[in-house]
Amino acid sequence: MESNRLEAFSDGVLAIIITVMVLELKGPSGPRIADLWHTSGQSLLTYVLSFVYIGIYWNNHHHLFHVTDRVSGPVMWANLHLLFWLSLYPFTTSWMDDTHLARTPTVIYGVNLLAAAIAYYVLQVTILRQPGTGETLRGVLGSDLKGKLSPVLYLAGIGLAFVDPWLGLIPYAAVALIWLVPDRRVERYLEGAGDPVADPRPSRDPL
Amino acid sequence: MESNRLEAFSDGVLAIIITVMVLELKGPSGPRIADLWHTSGQSLLTYVLSFVYIGIYWNNHHHLFHVTDRVSGPVMWANLHLLFWLSLYPFTTSWMDDTHLARTPTVIYGVNLLAAAIAYYVLQVTILRQPGTGETLRGVLGSDLKGKLSPVLYLAGIGLAFVDPWLGLIPYAAVALIWLVPDRRVERYLEGAGDPVADPRPSRDPL
Amino acid sequence: MESNRLEAFSDGVLAIIITVMVLELKGPSGPRIADLWHTSGQSLLTYVLSFVYIGIYWNNHHHLFHVTDRVSGPVMWANLHLLFWLSLYPFTTSWMDDTHLARTPTVIYGVNLLAAAIAYYVLQVTILRQPGTGETLRGVLGSDLKGKLSPVLYLAGIGLAFVDPWLGLIPYAAVALIWLVPDRRVERYLEGAGDPVADPRPSRDPL
Amino acid sequence: MESNRLEAFSDGVLAIIITVMVLELKGPSGPRIADLWHTSGQSLLTYVLSFVYIGIYWNNHHHLFHVTDRVSGPVMWANLHLLFWLSLYPFTTSWMDDTHLARTPTVIYGVNLLAAAIAYYVLQVTILRQPGTGETLRGVLGSDLKGKLSPVLYLAGIGLAFVDPWLGLIPYAAVALIWLVPDRRVERYLEGAGDPVADPRPSRDPL
Repeated sequence: MESNRLEAFSDGVLAIIITVMVLELKGPSGPRIADLWHTSGQSLLTYVLSFVYIGIYWNNHHHLFHVTDRVSGPVMWANLHLLFWLSLYPFTTSWMDDTHLARTPTVIYGVNLLAAAIAYYVLQVTILRQPGTGETLRGVLGSDLKGKLSPVLYLAGIGLAFVDPWLGLIPYAAVALIWLVPDRRVERYLEGAGDPVADPRPSRDPL
Repeated sequence: MESNRLEAFSDGVLAIIITVMVLELKGPSGPRIADLWHTSGQSLLTYVLSFVYIGIYWNNHHHLFHVTDRVSGPVMWANLHLLFWLSLYPFTTSWMDDTHLARTPTVIYGVNLLAAAIAYYVLQVTILRQPGTGETLRGVLGSDLKGKLSPVLYLAGIGLAFVDPWLGLIPYAAVALIWLVPDRRVERYLEGAGDPVADPRPSRDPL
Repeated sequence: MESNRLEAFSDGVLAIIITVMVLELKGPSGPRIADLWHTSGQSLLTYVLSFVYIGIYWNNHHHLFHVTDRVSGPVMWANLHLLFWLSLYPFTTSWMDDTHLARTPTVIYGVNLLAAAIAYYVLQVTILRQPGTGETLRGVLGSDLKGKLSPVLYLAGIGLAFVDPWLGLIPYAAVALIWLVPDRRVERYLEGAGDPVADPRPSRDPL
Repeated sequence: MESNRLEAFSDGVLAIIITVMVLELKGPSGPRIADLWHTSGQSLLTYVLSFVYIGIYWNNHHHLFHVTDRVSGPVMWANLHLLFWLSLYPFTTSWMDDTHLARTPTVIYGVNLLAAAIAYYVLQVTILRQPGTGETLRGVLGSDLKGKLSPVLYLAGIGLAFVDPWLGLIPYAAVALIWLVPDRRVERYLEGAGDPVADPRPSRDPL
């Protein structure tokens, strides 16, 4: 089974998730800039966060299947399992928004992030077990430090959200930053990686 | 007519259906975990069920057109007919949710599942009648026990939903499980299959 | 410029339009079958009609670009122009629904159908003017009787909708049927065709 | 990394943005043509404007990646950055509508248009810095007068919107027209171009 149709389907789902979140954005209650800030400010903030997450997943998904030509039945299901958790992002994001970052919704948002990270890990392991593709991928992934660090940070965020929801957002945002920042020293230090959010090749173009 | 554009269009529609259902999920009425459970618990349950169904259809659609290179006019219409019934999933799912699993909506949900299964069967028969592709597909499908069992279970679910809606959900979930579980003994016993929900090849990778 | 990306984009837009209409479907007001009929019956009817129209356009779009390998700038814009009118289907369909098939909305729905048919015709003419592809397409289109009949029927529907909206729906539905019915006698009589809704090749597989 | 999957994902996101705006369209408040005009007239106007913008971006995106075969990590992120600003179009468009073209929302809409134009420019520069593809693209872009004119017009629109929102819409619409009109004299005078809204090749087919 070739991987191109799985990629096309995943692209479709990710493209929809990333765009659908705009529909959940609360419109400002009036025509002034203060209305934009008060009604939608926080929504826009969490929208940016979730947009970046989906973008990172798409980026890594892209790299993961770039070295995977053929997919078995279990890979398909592991992929759908990942898409399931990602599809809940709009739901948990908007709950967090509607309650103005209350404790439980912020914890649940972290659980959703963690569940997606685990699903990505399961997908990666399932591909590694495929005969043929496993070897190439293993070399590309390297020590996968970023991938190992992310769940730890998610757990820290979930713990901190119990203390104060805004504190919990810090580790959540930190995960996104680790994967986003194209700092080559960090990248060399972390030696590549490929989990929830990695560009396996050191980027040569300083943006 | 090559099948790749039909696959791309179907992928698009299925990707949207699977994601659009999230928009229909009722947000929790308050910030506590009890609110999540009371307002959205049941919604999440039926969301998982419908997500798995669409995933299974995508998986089987993928396999079906993998052995179908060219498509005739009737195959196109049979495919749109299938997509029509699948596109009603968000509608019937949310009716069932809004009425807290009342009798009639649960029956109608089952009728929708059954209609999609019949549409899939019609699509399969239409492809089998195409000169050239029919022979390969026939071999792949085998005795298609899973495909024959599913409508029977749907009918059982519809019947049981008249007695108690929650009873009806059991056979509905059972159909999803039959197709999901990668148990090789079951797979060998059922000899492959390819109807609403089949992976025609015995999966060699134990997840 | 190759036509494959234009086709992918159009597939995406059409897939979304066809699915988004489900979101506009009014959910039944209660748990009984009478509620389904009274609140959603009419919505479901117009949904089927619009679903079939989009399906027919996708089908013909597919055929049109099958014989068109390269696209110029004007073809791109003619295609976007068509997609614009098709993107208004959910809007005009739901207006017609919300007003329980009042006169003006039913007339406007017909105007929308007519505008899309004209946009399709403009797209076809723009492709015919392209050097190279024009000749092949001309042969495929034949006398294009179906394409010439459709606008007449739309105009008839618009006229009848002024008398009684339900009367107007008859010619609207008739256009869909002309393109749907795989009657080979009609097809031979109409000699192929390729406008809003045609399968240029006589289908050899009796469904 | 090949560019085709990036194109597919972008096509998906753009297709969804262009269609999702229809969902934000306010339905007419009653069954008369006056209701359509009063409730939805202005919505339809801004919808057309945003539809044309997204169409122009898709068109230019298409041309940009036509001469870009391989994409690096930074190009991927520059592309996601562009998609982010475009994904806010439905949000800013509907704010402008809901407030009946109040001053601040119209200014913010202009800021959104400007941000997307800057993001497109950043994307273009990022591709130009890629070894290999830069040279071809430089030749195609030419002096890029249209691209340089657009931000100036956006800024003029933002300034005029402070005076009167309707005045601000004039330069916004002018940008769309510059890129849309297939006037060959303008095109020759502007020497091609490829920024937010360009067809790098002089169109030879008078539509």
